[in-house]
Amino acid sequence: MAKELKDLTKRADNYSQWYSDLVTKADLAEAAPVRGCMIIKPYGYAIWEKMQAQLDKMFKATGVQNAYFPLLIPKGFFAKEAEHVAGFAKESAVVTHYRLKSAADGKGIVVDPEAKLEEELIIRPTSETMIWNTYKNWIHSYRDLPILCNQWCNVMRWEMRTRPFLRTSEFLWQEGHTAHATSEEAQAEARKMLKVYAEFAEQWMGVPVVQGVKSESERFAGALDTYTIEAMMQDGKALQSGTSHFLGQNFAKSFDVTFLNKENKPEYVWATSWGVSTRLMGALIMVHSDDNGLVLPPRLAPIQVVIVPISKNAEQLAAITAKLQPVIDRLRELGISVKYDDSDNKRPGFKFADYELKGVPVRLVMGGRDLEDNTIEVMRRDTLEKENVSFDGIVERVEALLDDIQQNIFEKARRYRDSHIYECDDYEEFKERVKGGGFFLCHWDGTAETEAKIKEDTQATIRCVPFGVEQTPGTDMVSGKPAKHRVIIARSY
Amino acid sequence: MAKELKDLTKRADNYSQWYSDLVTKADLAEAAPVRGCMIIKPYGYAIWEKMQAQLDKMFKATGVQNAYFPLLIPKGFFAKEAEHVAGFAKESAVVTHYRLKSAADGKGIVVDPEAKLEEELIIRPTSETMIWNTYKNWIHSYRDLPILCNQWCNVMRWEMRTRPFLRTSEFLWQEGHTAHATSEEAQAEARKMLKVYAEFAEQWMGVPVVQGVKSESERFAGALDTYTIEAMMQDGKALQSGTSHFLGQNFAKSFDVTFLNKENKPEYVWATSWGVSTRLMGALIMVHSDDNGLVLPPRLAPIQVVIVPISKNAEQLAAITAKLQPVIDRLRELGISVKYDDSDNKRPGFKFADYELKGVPVRLVMGGRDLEDNTIEVMRRDTLEKENVSFDGIVERVEALLDDIQQNIFEKARRYRDSHIYECDDYEEFKERVKGGGFFLCHWDGTAETEAKIKEDTQATIRCVPFGVEQTPGTDMVSGKPAKHRVIIARSY
Repeated sequence: MAKELKDLTKRADNYSQWYSDLVTKADLAEAAPVRGCMIIKPYGYAIWEKMQAQLDKMFKATGVQNAYFPLLIPKGFFAKEAEHVAGFAKESAVVTHYRLKSAADGKGIVVDPEAKLEEELIIRPTSETMIWNTYKNWIHSYRDLPILCNQWCNVMRWEMRTRPFLRTSEFLWQEGHTAHATSEEAQAEARKMLKVYAEFAEQWMGVPVVQGVKSESERFAGALDTYTIEAMMQDGKALQSGTSHFLGQNFAKSFDVTFLNKENKPEYVWATSWGVSTRLMGALIMVHSDDNGLVLPPRLAPIQVVIVPISKNAEQLAAITAKLQPVIDRLRELGISVKYDDSDNKRPGFKFADYELKGVPVRLVMGGRDLEDNTIEVMRRDTLEKENVSFDGIVERVEALLDDIQQNIFEKARRYRDSHIYECDDYEEFKERVKGGGFFLCHWDGTAETEAKIKEDTQATIRCVPFGVEQTPGTDMVSGKPAKHRVIIARSY
Repeated sequence: MAKELKDLTKRADNYSQWYSDLVTKADLAEAAPVRGCMIIKPYGYAIWEKMQAQLDKMFKATGVQNAYFPLLIPKGFFAKEAEHVAGFAKESAVVTHYRLKSAADGKGIVVDPEAKLEEELIIRPTSETMIWNTYKNWIHSYRDLPILCNQWCNVMRWEMRTRPFLRTSEFLWQEGHTAHATSEEAQAEARKMLKVYAEFAEQWMGVPVVQGVKSESERFAGALDTYTIEAMMQDGKALQSGTSHFLGQNFAKSFDVTFLNKENKPEYVWATSWGVSTRLMGALIMVHSDDNGLVLPPRLAPIQVVIVPISKNAEQLAAITAKLQPVIDRLRELGISVKYDDSDNKRPGFKFADYELKGVPVRLVMGGRDLEDNTIEVMRRDTLEKENVSFDGIVERVEALLDDIQQNIFEKARRYRDSHIYECDDYEEFKERVKGGGFFLCHWDGTAETEAKIKEDTQATIRCVPFGVEQTPGTDMVSGKPAKHRVIIARSY
């Protein structure tokens, strides 16, 4: 067994440590020498690239175009939208100087005090301010609307407690920013993008999500409504995996962005913004993986099939390779990414453990006996089931198996999630049970006071008012006041 | 004629102004409210995305993998490589604080003096230092080599004089960083990536380039050799369009990166780095475009074919659209990006001028007469030639035309370039002629003194010792000293 695998903490022992171990040992990411930042290693980045490619395609299918806006935002921009500044300006990296010089003692370099900026620049924590300052010049008439822009970029929030992918000071994301002539159109856009996120999470990541709307206190700073997709991790905690915001006319008013409507009257523009980030990597890892390592959905796996020959000598290896080559070629023609690992510097057992650790969905093994018998061993990573099957028809079998794994890991995650959603009407019971994880459907009176009390008592927060749940009025379990609907309450990452 | 087009400065009047006008009017980019930064607009970004996609494919075909390293680099890292610090640390954006707070007077926000970083962080101007600090942990034995990593990211250099795409404080680029066991292998890698850049420039951008090696004074800070591709703009000036560096063991020594060779002895690792940036957009625009606007190579054009119907009424429009639809569908099936512009809020003349301005390679127009005659008008953007042709076989004609345009603009640029490369052996003649632009092939004695004098006298610099030019020894035109070979000297962007 590979050393890396042996050292992997078991989920049952320490779920949090298991996650950190896995990120490192599966070569996904490592800590950077800058506080709270990470280095995304090639294997981790290859997964992110697959995510990006698919999301980008889905965005473009809705008419969105990509653009690029500056990394640095003048400090004054933040002060223009009152809630936004409160939410974002505080923990941000600030550029104050634009030059270094040699130290007076000749040792090393120091900041040149003469190169001080007149106005400090903030590394973008999000780009609403820069983008709405720009849209002011792009929008004059209703004919200029809608504008549907997205950018893929890095952003920075000076987080105090960080964890790889889940919360890092710098992270990669996409931020969509749209401008509309009407409130209805903007609201529809925000909900449309939430659906895109949900579809991506479920069909590509194999991660079931609850769609819903945030409570006021959990809204994006400056939004009128924040929609969210919430996923459940294997410890029953929630992970907010993507958000889409209806911003109303807040940013248009702050940056004075108006358009002439069809009646030639000026109106403020309506806005949305929406984003997902490398945080999705965290969801992907935490939802499917096991004590043997990563479990990746075939649709996002950098290597979908690994083929390992086991031979006694070079002659036998050549015979096995010759037999396998048409299968490798055919799979690649079908767009399936195949790794043929005939390296002779690692033992098969090491290879097996390593590819399990890396979450390769399907493993094929052919030895001398298989060659004689016209058979091949097929292993599926999700269940670790192995079988020896006929070599004939192996291509079709692999194709079907990849689809099956994609479906199976989603269903498995959904079963887990659904069996950990509880209706709860008693606060004492809630306080006890929430410690064990899960999503709690509870009536809420809609007040910030109740919300704050739950958080203080239990560290759990209102994740959202879920969509698609049949709602009946009831009684708030904390305050005893009337409640219009149930919300999902959970501890979260 | 569209207003935008009417205002476009003519190249002959002011080439530099023509370029700036074109970048703005063709909706490629605009100035940002941060000094020296730009906003890349959707149309410009769509071209950059096509460039990225192709380059990325070519990199990966050589075995390169993508990764992501942090934006911020501790100041001390720069001081580790002596030449590198001299070249890069000076004009860089410096992060000194990580928090803002409300101003004491309640108006706006100010930097919180208590949130001062212990060590300042530099926004990466390039990532050799961060990456070699990381490679230290990745490399132990010859078995870990080579490492072939690339990242697509933003970088920042606090430039004093900026121009959109050509030189901006923040720009987008890719930076490849490879690690090798031998000097030979690293040198071969640096040259291989230069060839990739040259192939991309010529076959995709349609921009002919001279490949060569830089003089010592023009080398990348910290490199033993810098290879370059140099393109010629329509004013005869050079644009350095991509560079690839053989870094020797400089960074390995600075960051103490060693490996155990096959004899189990420690050795320093050999390095390369190589990059192209959004500067390529500048080359693309400046090489092909004309007084009517952009001319884009079909392989990188966001819209390859625009089709404009001209109709007297809705009924006729429907008939034209019905006739065109199978052509539109077939072109799209072939992977050709088609825009069918039947919008009724702009006159045809406006549309024509606008698509010319945007450089759409092929325009098809069908009117009522065409419908009757089974004909269609075809216009190619590169030569502005129009002809009325039979509607039958139009798909094949468009396909062939796109190939022909791709080839034609390259050949045109090559003819221009080749007719503006001069051998010159007399310094007085050189000083006079270099004002008019062009690449001058001159003998150079190899000294920094001569190089500096040429620059001082003429603003022209040694672009490179070109590859693939038959060289004979001669006499330096400035110093009269013996010279081993001719170099290319030119004014440059």
